[in-house]
Amino acid sequence: MPETIAAAPTAASVAGLLAEVGGTGTDPVRGGYSRPVWSTAELELREWFTAHAAARGLDVEADRNGVLWAWWNPAGLPLTDAVVTGSHLDSVPGGGAFDGPLGVAAALAAVDHLRGRDLAPRRPLALAVFPEEEGSRFGVACLGSRLLTGAIGADRARALRDPDGNSFADVAARHGLDPRRVGRDDETLARIGTFVELHVEQGRGLVDLGRPVAIGSSILGHGRWRLTVSGEGNHAGTTLMADRRDPLVAAAQVVVAARDAARAHPPARATVGRVQPVPGGTNVIASRVDLWLDVRHPDDATTAALVAQIHERARQVAAAEGCTAELVEESFSPTAHFDPALRERLREVLPDAPVLDTGAGHDAGVLAAHLPTAMLFVRNPSGVSHSPAEHVEDVDAEVGATALADVLADLLTR
Amino acid sequence: MPETIAAAPTAASVAGLLAEVGGTGTDPVRGGYSRPVWSTAELELREWFTAHAAARGLDVEADRNGVLWAWWNPAGLPLTDAVVTGSHLDSVPGGGAFDGPLGVAAALAAVDHLRGRDLAPRRPLALAVFPEEEGSRFGVACLGSRLLTGAIGADRARALRDPDGNSFADVAARHGLDPRRVGRDDETLARIGTFVELHVEQGRGLVDLGRPVAIGSSILGHGRWRLTVSGEGNHAGTTLMADRRDPLVAAAQVVVAARDAARAHPPARATVGRVQPVPGGTNVIASRVDLWLDVRHPDDATTAALVAQIHERARQVAAAEGCTAELVEESFSPTAHFDPALRERLREVLPDAPVLDTGAGHDAGVLAAHLPTAMLFVRNPSGVSHSPAEHVEDVDAEVGATALADVLADLLTR
Repeated sequence: MPETIAAAPTAASVAGLLAEVGGTGTDPVRGGYSRPVWSTAELELREWFTAHAAARGLDVEADRNGVLWAWWNPAGLPLTDAVVTGSHLDSVPGGGAFDGPLGVAAALAAVDHLRGRDLAPRRPLALAVFPEEEGSRFGVACLGSRLLTGAIGADRARALRDPDGNSFADVAARHGLDPRRVGRDDETLARIGTFVELHVEQGRGLVDLGRPVAIGSSILGHGRWRLTVSGEGNHAGTTLMADRRDPLVAAAQVVVAARDAARAHPPARATVGRVQPVPGGTNVIASRVDLWLDVRHPDDATTAALVAQIHERARQVAAAEGCTAELVEESFSPTAHFDPALRERLREVLPDAPVLDTGAGHDAGVLAAHLPTAMLFVRNPSGVSHSPAEHVEDVDAEVGATALADVLADLLTR
Repeated sequence: MPETIAAAPTAASVAGLLAEVGGTGTDPVRGGYSRPVWSTAELELREWFTAHAAARGLDVEADRNGVLWAWWNPAGLPLTDAVVTGSHLDSVPGGGAFDGPLGVAAALAAVDHLRGRDLAPRRPLALAVFPEEEGSRFGVACLGSRLLTGAIGADRARALRDPDGNSFADVAARHGLDPRRVGRDDETLARIGTFVELHVEQGRGLVDLGRPVAIGSSILGHGRWRLTVSGEGNHAGTTLMADRRDPLVAAAQVVVAARDAARAHPPARATVGRVQPVPGGTNVIASRVDLWLDVRHPDDATTAALVAQIHERARQVAAAEGCTAELVEESFSPTAHFDPALRERLREVLPDAPVLDTGAGHDAGVLAAHLPTAMLFVRNPSGVSHSPAEHVEDVDAEVGATALADVLADLLTR
C-alpha cells in the first residue's frame, strides 16, 4: 500500500512560474520569444524546470534523446506504467509565451496540487520536457518524441542541419548527448503507461464556446515539404526580362497555388511561412529559391493528394519560367486519434469540458501511436498562436492546472 | 616641366593580380564570393590593393568617407584636376570574381604600363577604391561615392543598418572613420578632374559584337524600394484558410506583378531578389513580409510610373488578403549620361571599341553628375553577372588594362 503524499503548504501559480522566465529568449526584432532547442534561452528554461522539479523533490534525468524526466515517486513504486505529463520549452521564431511552457508550468503546479491532496498513488508520476517540438532549429517537428519512439531514424536525425549548417549530431554532442546513442529507446518508452499533455489552444474553439478548458480528440495529419526551385542567377539591371530564368517568380506562384489548393478542399490548410532566395541580394536575380510548405488535413489521403497537386503546379510554373522544381518531404505525421477509453475517463473527471480536435502537431500525437495519450487545451482569447499575440488569462491557466491535477489524481489512484 | 616617369621592368598581369585574392571571401554556400564592405574578406582586398599601390610608390590614404586613394604623382604636381581610375572591392552575396576587382587590378596594371612608357604627365593620377558599391550590407548602392558627392545625406547614411542591426555609423567607427565627419567632401571632390572606371560587362553586348572592350555611353536610371506587407501572424495548422491575413500570399503576387509590369514596358527591368517573411518559421503564417524591388529604365519618368503601378497593385492584392502594403524608396539614381566630349576623346584613343550603355549602377554614374566621367567595359563571355558564372578571359583582361593605360596616357599628357 503506497504511503500518502505529504501535503505542500501552497501551490505555485502557473502565471507566477511563467513570469520567472518572462524575460528569457525575448526577440527584439520579431517580438515575442525565440527559444530554439539548445539555445541559451531554451537551456535557461530547462534549468528553470530542473530547479523547480528538484525543489519539489523530483528526481530529474535526461534520457539519451535529450528528453528531461522528473520522477515523482515517493512510494518507491517500480518505474513502469507511469502517468506522464509535460510539454516542451522550445519555441518558433517570435512565438508566444505559452506554446509549450504553459504545459510544463501547469505540470509543476499540478504536482503542488497533488501534494496538497490526501491521495495514495498506485502509479509513479513523471513530468517530461521534449526537445525540438517546433522543429524550428533542425526542421523536423517533435524531434524528441520521434527519436524516442523511432518515428525518425537515428541516422536521418543525426544528419539534420540547423540554419547555420551545424548537424544535429554535433549540436547534441555539444550539449551532453552521445550522438551514437540517440534513437528509439524502448526501455524509456516502456516506463510510460499514459501521457497527458496540457497545451494552450491554438485556435478559437474555446473562445467561441466560452469555456476555459477542452479535452483533445485528434490531431490533424500534417507534414512539411521543402520545395527547391532552380533557375539562373544574374544581374538585376543588365539582364533583359526576356532572358531571365527567375526562380522567385516561379516560387511566388507556388505560394499562391498552395493557398488556392487548400481553399478548394476545406478544412485543409496549406501555408508557406518560410522562403529563402539564394543568394538573396537586392540587385540579383536569384539562382535558387527554397520554400517550405506546411499542409494539413484530417484525411491523410487528401493531404497527400494536395501535396501532389501543389508539386505538379510547381513543376508547371517552374517550367514556364525556364526553371525546375523539386519537392522533398521533411516530415509527415498521419492524423492522430487520442485513445477513446482515456478520453472518456477525462470526460468523467471534467464533465464540463468540450471535446475539440486541433490542427497543431504535438508530442502527444507522436506518442499516441504507442500508448494511451490525451490532451487538455486551455483557452487562448486571441485565437492566435506562433505569434506574440498568443495569450492565456491567468485565471484560465490556474483552471487548466487544476483540471490537469484532477485528471492526474484520477489516473494515479484509480 | 614634369620629369619623365621611370619605366617599370614588367607590367603585372591582371589575371595574376586577381589570382592573389582568388581565395578571399569565397562563399561555400552560394558559390562565388561574398565580400560585403568591411567584412574580413573586403578588408583583406583593401590590404592587397594598398600593398600593391605602395609597391608601385603610390601614396595611399583613406578619405573621411572610407574611399581609398593611391596617388601617383612623381612630378609633384598640385593635387588638382587629377585623372582618376578605379572601382570597388565589395561584392554582392555569391557574386563573381570580376565585378569591382577587375577595375582595381586593371588600374594597378595600367600604372605598370604607364611606367613602361616614356611619357611626361601634366596631371596627377589617382587610383580610387569606393566602399559599399553594391549596397549589399547597408542597402544603398554606391554609398561611398554618394557620401563623397552629397548624393546621400550624412544623417541618413549614419542611420543605415546592416542585416545584423548594426548602424553604418557604428561599423564605420569600428573601422577607423569618424562618423561625425562622413558626408559631402568638396575638398576631395575638387581634386578629381576626370574619372574613368573599367568594369566587367554585365550583359551580352560585347559577346554578341565579338569585341573585347567597349566605351560606356550611359547608365540606366535605377533604384531600390522596400515594400512591407503587413498581415496577421498565426499558427499554420490551426488557422482556417478563411480566417487568414497572410502577407506572404500578397507579397508573392507582387513578385509576379513586378515582373509583368516590366515585361509590358521594354527595356524596363523589375526584379525581386530578396524577400524576408517575419518571423519566417515553417509552421507559422507570417505577420509581415519585407521585399525589395529593383526597377530600371532609361527614361526616369517611366521608372517612376512603373514603381507607382507596382505599388498600386501591391495595395490591391494586400487589401484582398486583409493586409496592408507600404513602399519606401531606399535609393534612386536617374539615368546618367557620361560626358560626350570625354567619350569622343576615348573613341579617338580606342577607335575599334563599340559604345554601349549598361543597366548596372556604378560609382562612375554617381560622379558623372559632378565631373567628366567615362567607363570602359570588358567582355564577359557568360553575359552573366552578380553570380559565380560571371567571367573574363585572361587575354581580355589584359586588353582591357592596356586600353585603360592608353586612355590614361592620353588624359595625363594631352
